[in-house]
Amino acid sequence: MATSASRTKFKDIINTGFGANTNAEGGRLVNPDGSNNLKKTGMPLYERISIYHTLLRMSRFKFMIAILFFYTSINLFFAFIYFAIGVNHLSGIDINHPIWMRFVEAFFFSSQTLTTVGYGHVAPSGLLTNFVASTESLLGILAFAVVTGLIYGRFSRPKAYLLFSKNMLIAPYRGSKALMIRLATYKNNHLTDAEAQLTVAMHVMEDGKKITRFYQLPLEISRVTSLALSWTVVHPINEDSPLANLTEEQMNEAKLEIILSIKAFDDHFSNTVQQRTSYSHNQLVYGARFLPMFDRAREGAYTILELDKINHHEKVVIVEDVTG
Amino acid sequence: MATSASRTKFKDIINTGFGANTNAEGGRLVNPDGSNNLKKTGMPLYERISIYHTLLRMSRFKFMIAILFFYTSINLFFAFIYFAIGVNHLSGIDINHPIWMRFVEAFFFSSQTLTTVGYGHVAPSGLLTNFVASTESLLGILAFAVVTGLIYGRFSRPKAYLLFSKNMLIAPYRGSKALMIRLATYKNNHLTDAEAQLTVAMHVMEDGKKITRFYQLPLEISRVTSLALSWTVVHPINEDSPLANLTEEQMNEAKLEIILSIKAFDDHFSNTVQQRTSYSHNQLVYGARFLPMFDRAREGAYTILELDKINHHEKVVIVEDVTG
Amino acid sequence: MATSASRTKFKDIINTGFGANTNAEGGRLVNPDGSNNLKKTGMPLYERISIYHTLLRMSRFKFMIAILFFYTSINLFFAFIYFAIGVNHLSGIDINHPIWMRFVEAFFFSSQTLTTVGYGHVAPSGLLTNFVASTESLLGILAFAVVTGLIYGRFSRPKAYLLFSKNMLIAPYRGSKALMIRLATYKNNHLTDAEAQLTVAMHVMEDGKKITRFYQLPLEISRVTSLALSWTVVHPINEDSPLANLTEEQMNEAKLEIILSIKAFDDHFSNTVQQRTSYSHNQLVYGARFLPMFDRAREGAYTILELDKINHHEKVVIVEDVTG
Amino acid sequence: MATSASRTKFKDIINTGFGANTNAEGGRLVNPDGSNNLKKTGMPLYERISIYHTLLRMSRFKFMIAILFFYTSINLFFAFIYFAIGVNHLSGIDINHPIWMRFVEAFFFSSQTLTTVGYGHVAPSGLLTNFVASTESLLGILAFAVVTGLIYGRFSRPKAYLLFSKNMLIAPYRGSKALMIRLATYKNNHLTDAEAQLTVAMHVMEDGKKITRFYQLPLEISRVTSLALSWTVVHPINEDSPLANLTEEQMNEAKLEIILSIKAFDDHFSNTVQQRTSYSHNQLVYGARFLPMFDRAREGAYTILELDKINHHEKVVIVEDVTG
Repeated sequence: MATSASRTKFKDIINTGFGANTNAEGGRLVNPDGSNNLKKTGMPLYERISIYHTLLRMSRFKFMIAILFFYTSINLFFAFIYFAIGVNHLSGIDINHPIWMRFVEAFFFSSQTLTTVGYGHVAPSGLLTNFVASTESLLGILAFAVVTGLIYGRFSRPKAYLLFSKNMLIAPYRGSKALMIRLATYKNNHLTDAEAQLTVAMHVMEDGKKITRFYQLPLEISRVTSLALSWTVVHPINEDSPLANLTEEQMNEAKLEIILSIKAFDDHFSNTVQQRTSYSHNQLVYGARFLPMFDRAREGAYTILELDKINHHEKVVIVEDVTG
Repeated sequence: MATSASRTKFKDIINTGFGANTNAEGGRLVNPDGSNNLKKTGMPLYERISIYHTLLRMSRFKFMIAILFFYTSINLFFAFIYFAIGVNHLSGIDINHPIWMRFVEAFFFSSQTLTTVGYGHVAPSGLLTNFVASTESLLGILAFAVVTGLIYGRFSRPKAYLLFSKNMLIAPYRGSKALMIRLATYKNNHLTDAEAQLTVAMHVMEDGKKITRFYQLPLEISRVTSLALSWTVVHPINEDSPLANLTEEQMNEAKLEIILSIKAFDDHFSNTVQQRTSYSHNQLVYGARFLPMFDRAREGAYTILELDKINHHEKVVIVEDVTG
Repeated sequence: MATSASRTKFKDIINTGFGANTNAEGGRLVNPDGSNNLKKTGMPLYERISIYHTLLRMSRFKFMIAILFFYTSINLFFAFIYFAIGVNHLSGIDINHPIWMRFVEAFFFSSQTLTTVGYGHVAPSGLLTNFVASTESLLGILAFAVVTGLIYGRFSRPKAYLLFSKNMLIAPYRGSKALMIRLATYKNNHLTDAEAQLTVAMHVMEDGKKITRFYQLPLEISRVTSLALSWTVVHPINEDSPLANLTEEQMNEAKLEIILSIKAFDDHFSNTVQQRTSYSHNQLVYGARFLPMFDRAREGAYTILELDKINHHEKVVIVEDVTG
Repeated sequence: MATSASRTKFKDIINTGFGANTNAEGGRLVNPDGSNNLKKTGMPLYERISIYHTLLRMSRFKFMIAILFFYTSINLFFAFIYFAIGVNHLSGIDINHPIWMRFVEAFFFSSQTLTTVGYGHVAPSGLLTNFVASTESLLGILAFAVVTGLIYGRFSRPKAYLLFSKNMLIAPYRGSKALMIRLATYKNNHLTDAEAQLTVAMHVMEDGKKITRFYQLPLEISRVTSLALSWTVVHPINEDSPLANLTEEQMNEAKLEIILSIKAFDDHFSNTVQQRTSYSHNQLVYGARFLPMFDRAREGAYTILELDKINHHEKVVIVEDVTG
């Protein structure tokens, strides 16, 4: 098959961290959000999971739910203990109240102890209850320290805030064609010294077997000094490209997966940020070019970057170079 | 026009993150504070804004106002809830007090709960009020965690604390002339391995159209090992300079914008800091040189750096080299 | 002896931070956990120990014990002070209680002050007791600040979470043999731009004395762009290798110690992580190769990495090249 | 003068951040603790000082004093306000107490509010007192946030913990001589990839004027992969050295100042640390060599690094090479 045969002159890269697998009919390697499409086994879950990583990656809503859940659980746990010891050791709680009410009052005493608000209209008396309350207030302080750390960790986690075009395009380029992906920062952050790295994973035939090969795709510009506006990452498909001479059908057949990794310096926080994404062959638009997404403001005082136009493209005809 | 024509031999840089725009009559690209003169559209504000970035960049005064505003708002909100449930569920508040007084007392109970001071002379009774108070004290703890994170984030944000001269000078330099900008750290921080990068954006004529071109300006010294005293960044205007043979008028006509970016290593915090600034053509002083801004102390025991003299310069005549 | 003699053509590295010691019969240089097998003397312990480093490196369990210990100690200390001043200055404590009970009540008052829960059913009266309580609550706040910092420090400490194979193998490799070590990340973290550095420390004879020499071992691939799956670090034992022509016996005799250092970029936290390990000669398996530890899931949708197979290897015969 | 004349063939470095000053008779440029011997003027103190830098650099003792001072000041301030409003608005304070006692009680109420311990045996009543107490508890929470940030900042500040030899030696070296300085880490931290940079500042005669010139001193080894044991930084004084052919007297006459800067990677915290020191000419020992400061433990199981021997040296005769 021509597709595979024509690739042999390119040095494939074996240092991608993914192996070449003879059973190439798997799913994608990298998810669109940049995580690896991978599952680890052979170790218990609690050893395989970094709780801190997980709590930082969690959505804001889930994080709030998790905190509410822990707050309620701990209070229920201690309410049960106070109740078991006897609410008569909590001065201020009427022991003639019905049982559910006394439990609820123990619950609220627990919450006042855990948050260290300690109004004192309910207060511990007796050795055991005092001991439990003393432990709970320490736990409250430690839990709070953990939450402070988590919230700061979530806040300060370096993020690139990059928006990628939904499609990758094969566009006309200097008499030939090029693979193009567009990206821009969408927040009020400013990235400098941004570097792009483009890798392709494709199925090729070798010794009659379909295997996955990886190639680095050279870029027209692989580094920009400032990511103020949008950046169109361009891989020229010339004779040096592993994608040379592939037709649209052959690209789909080879189940192209393009992994784009951006590394940049966040101007404001002074640290390095990184973001990855992946395009599968069904996100490829063959014969199209991006339309501009920024312009000078009418009054000419500043530049406008229209983020909703990041994927705006128009169809164009690509004249296939038959002499390639 | 000579200005534009003579530039064609220089390779312009296309990786500035700003595009070459045919409608070149816009405002400056980078503001003097280093931020981009740019507006993003096409996404809702809350997606375009990083609240953390914003709260960290905010002035100290505005940040204090924001905190006071949130503190008052949350207390008003909870006061209203306690009031709606009924202040009779807040033991210690006299229900015979006039309505406004009872609301104010609910407000203060709320503040005692939110800050977890919880004196207890006013205390919640009844299921609903206890539930609200329990929720509010949790919210208080979380809000406090957020504030701790923000304050630490503001404190520890790497900053270069660089003071730049107000003007850029065209000064005599080794028989020719050079573009000079002076800078110094103004705090008790110490920067090492400082690197400067100078970029010019200028209007040139191409195919009868005025467009913006970017050129990297080579520096006499682009890296200093220690930024103890002041540093005069010098771009020699010789035959290799995109500014060669430009008269003062031509520089103004080309609407020169000079972007200076400094990256350094903070000796104390051991992290990389970065600061940018931009000079527009009306900040250019043609024919001037900086006067010294540091001297040995009279008693000879240490060196004095006079920060108020950062922009001190004197006019000098530049002998134009007609053979360039 | 051939072992030593054949090494002289290799440039040993003297910048390992370990000296060449004529008394070479010592223990290993680096422990399997990556720390140096080293003891420092000549300075008092408190100057030689960074408490922060120690508290961050401590196991979770020991850290909890340490906190409980400090909490109890401080409360005992203050309980003693309150008791010495007189519990009659603590309103709410019955002075007719037996002495041990009054001490316990002072202890619980102390814990309520330290955690700032301050119920108030016991409250300080009198100048001295008020002064001590005021000091204790400040101390509580400071101690809490310290604990918050420690917990955040423990959470956010960059860790590589690398799992190394228990053995290093001498495996057949391209007609000759190679030293191989396998590693993988075992948590839900993702490392990019991973770099490996392999150093050997071995005993050689020089001038009739046994001394320790260090050599850098060149790797087939020393950098991978993504550490998604496992990585087998391969040092080809060819004519350029300091291990060339060594038999299994000679390797043991030379008391080979292999130090592997991995440096990578954590994709999620955007910082550099590093992990070291060391293999002593008795962890060497001569004539073996690693078995695969990952596969595509049956349904083909993702890849499975089996962490329990990291050390899986099978014995193979190595054909010694007699012409080396 | 020979001293100065013989230097002209060396390229001096002008990018040290220190200028060549014709009035060379000043004090040292860098203090032994690595800070610049420099004073900045021309800006008000509060703009010239980074409070965060200052509070982080402060000794532990001074930091504790500062906190105590602020705690007392704020409490005095609020006590005065509560007292001015009238302690009759603080329920629980006997208005028949003598004036000083009522002030003291207001002071303690303030401290209970600031630390949010809020026992409640004294509680605010009346609009104004409640308002002040509400403000104070917010202030307390913010102050606590600041202190938490500062304490964490102090803890987590990357530090190299390097111990330098008190003297620099001119020692015999490969038939000639070399400048040697010894250093070691003295804490339980481990540095990797350590880099040294050695700069000399010396007085030379140029055009009949004494000026300060800076030269980079090439090192035998400028980078070590691990700083496990001690490291002797060696600058060979050969024909390429700016110090070549200088006698002991000429070195003193030239008022040699040697600035040593170490940059390394902290293995545990995964960040870059840096430490500088400076040696003046009167710390120079001409004709001496360092004695070993580490050895294998008797039982051979680990290595011992004796930190108190960092400056141990013995006098040796240097045979001056007269043909230099």
